[in-house]
Amino acid sequence: MRVLIKNGIVVNADGQARQDLLIENGLIAQLAEQITPAEPCETIDAEGCYVMPGGIDVHTHFNIDVGHARSCDDFFTGTRAAACGGTTTIVDHMGFGPAGCRLRHQLEVYQDYAAYKAVIDYSFHGTIQHVNHAILDEIPLLVEEGISSFKLYLTYKYKLNDDEALQAMRHLNQAGALTTVHPENDAAIARKRAEFLAAGKTAPRYHALSRPLECEAEAIARMINLAQLTGNAPLYIVHLSNGLGLEYLRLARRRRQPVWVETCPQYLLLDERCYEREDALKFILTPPLRNASNNDALWCGIADGAIDTVATDHCAFSMAQRQQLSGGDFSRCPNGLPGVENRLLLLFSHGVMTGRITPERFVALTSANPAKLFGLWPQKGQLAPGADGDVVIIDPRRTTTIRHAMLHDNADYSPWEGFICQGAIRQTLSRGRTIFDNGNFTGTAGQGRFLRRRPFSTANVPVSGNAS
Amino acid sequence: MRVLIKNGIVVNADGQARQDLLIENGLIAQLAEQITPAEPCETIDAEGCYVMPGGIDVHTHFNIDVGHARSCDDFFTGTRAAACGGTTTIVDHMGFGPAGCRLRHQLEVYQDYAAYKAVIDYSFHGTIQHVNHAILDEIPLLVEEGISSFKLYLTYKYKLNDDEALQAMRHLNQAGALTTVHPENDAAIARKRAEFLAAGKTAPRYHALSRPLECEAEAIARMINLAQLTGNAPLYIVHLSNGLGLEYLRLARRRRQPVWVETCPQYLLLDERCYEREDALKFILTPPLRNASNNDALWCGIADGAIDTVATDHCAFSMAQRQQLSGGDFSRCPNGLPGVENRLLLLFSHGVMTGRITPERFVALTSANPAKLFGLWPQKGQLAPGADGDVVIIDPRRTTTIRHAMLHDNADYSPWEGFICQGAIRQTLSRGRTIFDNGNFTGTAGQGRFLRRRPFSTANVPVSGNAS
Amino acid sequence: MRVLIKNGIVVNADGQARQDLLIENGLIAQLAEQITPAEPCETIDAEGCYVMPGGIDVHTHFNIDVGHARSCDDFFTGTRAAACGGTTTIVDHMGFGPAGCRLRHQLEVYQDYAAYKAVIDYSFHGTIQHVNHAILDEIPLLVEEGISSFKLYLTYKYKLNDDEALQAMRHLNQAGALTTVHPENDAAIARKRAEFLAAGKTAPRYHALSRPLECEAEAIARMINLAQLTGNAPLYIVHLSNGLGLEYLRLARRRRQPVWVETCPQYLLLDERCYEREDALKFILTPPLRNASNNDALWCGIADGAIDTVATDHCAFSMAQRQQLSGGDFSRCPNGLPGVENRLLLLFSHGVMTGRITPERFVALTSANPAKLFGLWPQKGQLAPGADGDVVIIDPRRTTTIRHAMLHDNADYSPWEGFICQGAIRQTLSRGRTIFDNGNFTGTAGQGRFLRRRPFSTANVPVSGNAS
Amino acid sequence: MRVLIKNGIVVNADGQARQDLLIENGLIAQLAEQITPAEPCETIDAEGCYVMPGGIDVHTHFNIDVGHARSCDDFFTGTRAAACGGTTTIVDHMGFGPAGCRLRHQLEVYQDYAAYKAVIDYSFHGTIQHVNHAILDEIPLLVEEGISSFKLYLTYKYKLNDDEALQAMRHLNQAGALTTVHPENDAAIARKRAEFLAAGKTAPRYHALSRPLECEAEAIARMINLAQLTGNAPLYIVHLSNGLGLEYLRLARRRRQPVWVETCPQYLLLDERCYEREDALKFILTPPLRNASNNDALWCGIADGAIDTVATDHCAFSMAQRQQLSGGDFSRCPNGLPGVENRLLLLFSHGVMTGRITPERFVALTSANPAKLFGLWPQKGQLAPGADGDVVIIDPRRTTTIRHAMLHDNADYSPWEGFICQGAIRQTLSRGRTIFDNGNFTGTAGQGRFLRRRPFSTANVPVSGNAS
Repeated sequence: MRVLIKNGIVVNADGQARQDLLIENGLIAQLAEQITPAEPCETIDAEGCYVMPGGIDVHTHFNIDVGHARSCDDFFTGTRAAACGGTTTIVDHMGFGPAGCRLRHQLEVYQDYAAYKAVIDYSFHGTIQHVNHAILDEIPLLVEEGISSFKLYLTYKYKLNDDEALQAMRHLNQAGALTTVHPENDAAIARKRAEFLAAGKTAPRYHALSRPLECEAEAIARMINLAQLTGNAPLYIVHLSNGLGLEYLRLARRRRQPVWVETCPQYLLLDERCYEREDALKFILTPPLRNASNNDALWCGIADGAIDTVATDHCAFSMAQRQQLSGGDFSRCPNGLPGVENRLLLLFSHGVMTGRITPERFVALTSANPAKLFGLWPQKGQLAPGADGDVVIIDPRRTTTIRHAMLHDNADYSPWEGFICQGAIRQTLSRGRTIFDNGNFTGTAGQGRFLRRRPFSTANVPVSGNAS
Repeated sequence: MRVLIKNGIVVNADGQARQDLLIENGLIAQLAEQITPAEPCETIDAEGCYVMPGGIDVHTHFNIDVGHARSCDDFFTGTRAAACGGTTTIVDHMGFGPAGCRLRHQLEVYQDYAAYKAVIDYSFHGTIQHVNHAILDEIPLLVEEGISSFKLYLTYKYKLNDDEALQAMRHLNQAGALTTVHPENDAAIARKRAEFLAAGKTAPRYHALSRPLECEAEAIARMINLAQLTGNAPLYIVHLSNGLGLEYLRLARRRRQPVWVETCPQYLLLDERCYEREDALKFILTPPLRNASNNDALWCGIADGAIDTVATDHCAFSMAQRQQLSGGDFSRCPNGLPGVENRLLLLFSHGVMTGRITPERFVALTSANPAKLFGLWPQKGQLAPGADGDVVIIDPRRTTTIRHAMLHDNADYSPWEGFICQGAIRQTLSRGRTIFDNGNFTGTAGQGRFLRRRPFSTANVPVSGNAS
Repeated sequence: MRVLIKNGIVVNADGQARQDLLIENGLIAQLAEQITPAEPCETIDAEGCYVMPGGIDVHTHFNIDVGHARSCDDFFTGTRAAACGGTTTIVDHMGFGPAGCRLRHQLEVYQDYAAYKAVIDYSFHGTIQHVNHAILDEIPLLVEEGISSFKLYLTYKYKLNDDEALQAMRHLNQAGALTTVHPENDAAIARKRAEFLAAGKTAPRYHALSRPLECEAEAIARMINLAQLTGNAPLYIVHLSNGLGLEYLRLARRRRQPVWVETCPQYLLLDERCYEREDALKFILTPPLRNASNNDALWCGIADGAIDTVATDHCAFSMAQRQQLSGGDFSRCPNGLPGVENRLLLLFSHGVMTGRITPERFVALTSANPAKLFGLWPQKGQLAPGADGDVVIIDPRRTTTIRHAMLHDNADYSPWEGFICQGAIRQTLSRGRTIFDNGNFTGTAGQGRFLRRRPFSTANVPVSGNAS
Repeated sequence: MRVLIKNGIVVNADGQARQDLLIENGLIAQLAEQITPAEPCETIDAEGCYVMPGGIDVHTHFNIDVGHARSCDDFFTGTRAAACGGTTTIVDHMGFGPAGCRLRHQLEVYQDYAAYKAVIDYSFHGTIQHVNHAILDEIPLLVEEGISSFKLYLTYKYKLNDDEALQAMRHLNQAGALTTVHPENDAAIARKRAEFLAAGKTAPRYHALSRPLECEAEAIARMINLAQLTGNAPLYIVHLSNGLGLEYLRLARRRRQPVWVETCPQYLLLDERCYEREDALKFILTPPLRNASNNDALWCGIADGAIDTVATDHCAFSMAQRQQLSGGDFSRCPNGLPGVENRLLLLFSHGVMTGRITPERFVALTSANPAKLFGLWPQKGQLAPGADGDVVIIDPRRTTTIRHAMLHDNADYSPWEGFICQGAIRQTLSRGRTIFDNGNFTGTAGQGRFLRRRPFSTANVPVSGNAS
């Protein structure tokens, strides 16, 4: 019941120190320069390693049913992979339910999906797939049950129009829920896609060409302004892939508007050249990969504080599924990439080890900010007495070459195949239990708990703290 | 047939010099340090004055029928007022026609309105009030007849949705026409207005509160991105009233997108305090007046080149009309301000005389840029041999206090009543004929000619020339 | 010993409310919706008025000896004028002492100047007029005595070079003192001034032309970078007059550097046209007035948070002095403007009443931020139990036309003569005593206390709180 | 005497087309979709390849004597390497001469260095190593001889102070010469270096730590403002290495100031991690390498037009020299990197092939902009009839791994060892003669001609064309 992590460099979002860390009964009991336990206990020597709050991935899609396919990772394989990558909490974006279903419908479906399966702690984001009085009235009930964030889609089957988005955001704000949004202009995409398909242009590259970055940037600016018009509802943009959208967000923060933004490793490190590869089908995701200038712009935002969180949008469909379903037509290929296991190491290697960000900022991006934004703070997101004993130990001296063969998800490929990272995930602890150790998964299905998340509060994420 | 303007400071957008200027047969014949005409001719001594290209006001609404009212200035009183304010060309935005009407319908209506009435040269912007194959096919025909710019509305009765805007812009671009747009988010306005009216909040201030600046900024960002998505169609934003929208435009120019923007004196010099006045009804216009910070931001754009043109959006409804129609309810008051006569002097006084802009930039904003953007260059917009003899003479040493009693429009008030301007419009010449002289209108109805405008060409307005 | 202010709108930097406010023994005792004192006490009815923390003017030069002249306001007339303008605390920038003097020398001189004279509480900024070991070693001693900010000059007689500035900033930072700086490039000014004088160009306008805004902007960027190089020493820029310098500061904040900036009403509301007036000599100050575009840019910074404080740089030389000393040569005219009495009302009228800033932000700019930056918080800068009973009551319904005849300084003119302000200073209280009441000064010389200021601490002014 | 390049994609800064290109007598004779020569001539099949203007590297230091060492590449090995990398023109920055020497002194020295050695065409930048009347008077004479750009150093032995820089820039501007500057704050560097050396911190990493990016950014802002103060002298910043300096330049361009900026491949693709390598001594150059965020920011500037040119600052000292001279002390190691041979391919691979820039922009950065800025246009910098037959043919389908063993300079290492580039330099022609062909140098020493460069003219590089 006791674990002592010795000699590591303990990092939180607001500082780092050479400290020992003691976990008792799943909670952090003590942090001190030197801890000598009264009784013998499990001891981990973290000399030369960073000891950090376990990762919180606030954007996954496990077991999602997208109509013509179900993603290949369920809550067991998905959270297992997360754990092996140093992530100890996920907040999954629930998929659409049947037409006209209540909000609770999907929550019940997802509670079933996750129970007895999840290896690490978890929660869900709600989805507003249509707007009417019943739905709006139901929002506070879900917030009370711990679902304090919801997602709006501006494209796909259940897109909201401007009036619906205004109503949804107002009610979400009043209920203490954070609005998250998938921002893309549906009309422009529909027109472009139709033109490509009519011209027989069905190769994967047309997936990207059918939804240029302006589709995304437009919708970001729109949602920023609509949020402001609802009485300054807090807004969280998911999976930002382009630099223009980031500039719009910078302008909003300059006006002290409560907006936050997430990006994903694929938008920092992969680019549209993937669509020229033979295995381009592996890279069909939405938003699509952009050119390298957008990587550059997003890295600038990672470094200077304009971007708040890094998540994965893990939504795995195997190549087998992709090939079969698409049949050579990008528009029928299910969208999404696996990657829940790679987030921390990719950002550590390309962010911390290159000097772009400090270890503290790494923790902010991967754990502390997600916890604060999504009602998990102070239980999650920090290494402090009383917080959960969720820990990742990273060794900066080792080098890791990513191979799908070593990963723990249920896909049959990795978009990161062959990527060389400086650093290695050495060990992951979930509430004090080691669930990953030097390459081996040591966790158990069902060990993860559902997290009733607190209502959204700007007290944790003061707007004045968002420098542009 | 000959007029010699001596001793003035001749200003064009690209320079100024102490020069004499000779007009023959309505065209500029010569510019030289000293011109001594072979034969005697009418001579104007402009010593100490600026001699500038006559103003081009590319945003007026003369004789417009807005359904429940017709504006009080027709093409005679409107162009008379323009002439007396130093403006020698107007391009009027045609109002909506009957549901389903062809593009040509309104052109014919407006040709009738203007013929025999206009004192100065004129043209019209087309309006795309709905989108279908017939309309799209008709665009090139109108461009051929000299209508090389069209307007889209995103609010009001004939608003276009995103898909229609995409189609319209693509066809306009292909036909050599410039898209101009009235950008406001209709859904947000409709919702706010309905809430105010339901709450009995009908005073003029609620006009402004029902369409906050974010409604406008949102639509600007949207149109910028949709324009880019149509294959980089050139785009012109009318009557910009807020600083956030200007920032979005700056970002577009940084990306070298062909976008331009117009503002009006009222957005530079009046602010929302007008809605607290007893005569607030005088100031109902769309977009509404904003707070003074938006004035500041727009002045920065005037000075640093981010704003391209200053027009008036002259759309005059008398106080009598306003009071009768509104009956105390802002939503029934016709929108718009008179002002076609005041543009040049207001900008001269508050722009040039304060050191914010040079005389050259004044000419760019009021004459040269409008000419280049709307197919009137090189005939209009400059003082150069071969160009039309359209001239305004401004005396910077005099002071003018604006009183409606002195103005030449058909309204019964001026929003500028009591404004003190440094400078005075001394004389206006239209193709060599003096049409305004020291306070007196000396022109003639019907003297103005319809201008067949050239197709839009980026050659005149190179995008690389748009510094942010 | 008790004063009750009833029915006003109590404003602090972080909020406002309709509240009563009770002062006992010079300290604020209570704030509540309704206070009914147990015993009878002096009661002020502030219905319809703003009740705000007394102004803190952190930039005055009373009784300053500039070599060939002494300013015409001493600590009595200067603080009397301050009091009558709603200011209850000043922090004076001490003038240069004799060559080679210790830091303490000037402190002693100024303590003598102020004792028995000051009407309101006061402190001093130190001045580093040269750098050597003795001076650097003396800094901590002065900080201990409450002098927790010092000024460096980059021009004038005792300018510091880069190496000296680096040393000074490092030691000031280590000692807990804030570095303030007068930023102008001396070499460029010296060269320009010499050229004008050699050409006989001695009129007041050449004062401005000899120190263009680039001189100031250059030095701002230099000091920002040197401060960063000393280990991120906190830096405060005084009397910002131009927009380019403000952009440099925005960039520094985007990097989360601890920099702050002050401007003055004259840089917001007056412009270079003053140098074309017959009485141009009245407007010789440094930095000089700029063109109106700089006003616009500074107002944007006032509104969006980029500017932190508004002070006056009150440094009064009468027209008699100016004329006699200059003898027609700008370079011999002592620099500076009176204005300590006009700061609050000018900013209230042109800031709050125009909608540019909220009343809360007004308090931040004029009182709370100065208190936090200069070690006076929480005693000064807020209306809260335990804080000093320093209060200004402003009536927004009245109109004030500024006339020097009504002012309380010792100059013989006001640069604000004839300015019309919306609002009026109704009453000023210093530690509970009314020192100004409806036009009448009611204070007493010697009533002001010297304030030992706390060391500088970023805890009060978190850098993350500085959005750009 | 005739060469025909067939089937390639001919790229200029303003467009590209599938064209044949005919060179006669060293000049470009014809460009056409299909050229069939009347007589048989040498024919190069460039199918699938880009045919571009030969590179112009405006920043090299061949044969430079830095006091305690001479660089290891002279004008033969240096230009041979350039040729093999696709560069057909260099403009070398002359080193300092003896104290007090005339400007002409070094020109004569360098003409001797280059004559009979240079393989490709060449010119020199002058250096203003001190300022006095004789030097200032000599400037126009050198401009007349074709030296139309000069360099100022703000650090190193012959640094100029602000007053000297003001004088130099004014005279250079008047003489038609472009001022280029090495911007670093000398005082800050001197202090930091002294502190490190005093503490025994002599490892290569302290080279970088002794000159942080703020030293460079400060000096950039200073020079921008001093240039403006001299009457808007045109200014060119060499070897930009950091993002903050770039932001300062963006602000200057927003004000339409004539400033331009160069960066180098090492500042785009290498970062400070090099100083942690065992062979860190290889990477001592000035400015030093920064962290990866600066790479990101510079790439953004490459893509969006804020950066104008890419040069190399080739200044090769072999590892043997470095080790011997430094003796373990960074401050004694000669500064500089080899790289003249790698510029085009590195930028092509990481710029064009990643989608950051178009082929047209690649030509602008590497050839057209340098030609326009440094008086070589229209003879150099474009493929157009009448221009010199300087051509590089790049094959985008091949992959190149850089190995020093394959390079043609005289150093004993490459900082780019092991870099994998997409693309390959296939062939280089200098005035029609093939000087590099598929890995083999085929040129001749002495074939290069001295280029008398035209005076600087903004007509070629319109300021309005510099979008920020």
